[in-house]
Amino acid sequence: MNGSPQREPVDLKRASRLLNHGPTVLVSAAHDGKRNVMAAAWNMPLDFDPPKVAVVIDKSTYTRGLIEGSGAFVLSVPCRAQVELTSAIGSSTGRDRDKFAELGLPASPASLVEAPLIDGCIAWLECRLLAEPALQARYDLFLGQVVAAWADPRVFSQGRWHFNDDSLRTLHHVAGGHYFVPGEQVTG
Amino acid sequence: MNGSPQREPVDLKRASRLLNHGPTVLVSAAHDGKRNVMAAAWNMPLDFDPPKVAVVIDKSTYTRGLIEGSGAFVLSVPCRAQVELTSAIGSSTGRDRDKFAELGLPASPASLVEAPLIDGCIAWLECRLLAEPALQARYDLFLGQVVAAWADPRVFSQGRWHFNDDSLRTLHHVAGGHYFVPGEQVTG
Repeated sequence: MNGSPQREPVDLKRASRLLNHGPTVLVSAAHDGKRNVMAAAWNMPLDFDPPKVAVVIDKSTYTRGLIEGSGAFVLSVPCRAQVELTSAIGSSTGRDRDKFAELGLPASPASLVEAPLIDGCIAWLECRLLAEPALQARYDLFLGQVVAAWADPRVFSQGRWHFNDDSLRTLHHVAGGHYFVPGEQVTG
Repeated sequence: MNGSPQREPVDLKRASRLLNHGPTVLVSAAHDGKRNVMAAAWNMPLDFDPPKVAVVIDKSTYTRGLIEGSGAFVLSVPCRAQVELTSAIGSSTGRDRDKFAELGLPASPASLVEAPLIDGCIAWLECRLLAEPALQARYDLFLGQVVAAWADPRVFSQGRWHFNDDSLRTLHHVAGGHYFVPGEQVTG
């Protein structure tokens, strides 16, 4: 990790805001020399401070075993420029190959966990698994405590999203490779 | 419940699509002659078939006791036309008053649970609580099985959202009463 212009630290008390509006995320994990990444529309913040998250990880995924083995995962928030990559990640398995190599997916080391940060994304949450084996087995539900958070300052600064660049908008999964990107902002 | 033009049944196998893209929801519950409604940005689908959902319900909310008492809740998906109402619902308590009367909030009976459907919303998920007391106490995390689902056919039909009318777009919470509405659709 470094302080490159595309990745600045986010105050942990504000980390929930990276997921508040419901973006699809990429879930990455690494363990024992293996690594993988999958897409997950089913994620949400679970607490503010310390920040926690919840994400659904199907039993069929290769990533799940890596999370259980390492006790950690990273949520990377992809952007519109990565829509094809996000669909490709979501529709292939890493069980018998390295998805990073296959998809030409650049990744960087995280600061506190073994799981990699996916480059080109616009936000990243490094999470330690809050192990709840019964919950994981029964509902495929994985909880994590966010121990470090990062965002691209071009779109997230001072605790808020600013989607001025169309190519850097978050992706919100509708179904089968179709996504909405955030449009107008409204206030109530 | 009736088959009014603004509320058509959604195939339960497609119910997860109502929440896939991350909208803020209104959570309503009723028990023992009391009812209430709150706003929740922190929600997600948990399974396809039978459909399940997860939602975070803080200990301070009046709605929580009604859910625990009745074993059920409804998630109503509000739209842009309701942005002020959504913020008002999210920033007041129903502990010592009837929020429905106070906010002039029309509601209709649900088909299978005691909790009411919030009128003017664009989708509704009737849920039976999957009681997990330890999870509720430890993480404020509530799980539900969707037993009936409805949507406004002007914006959701054949298992897909169609946001042609600006006033009927979903709300995606950023922070403090600010929301994004879905913009362009992209495909990967």
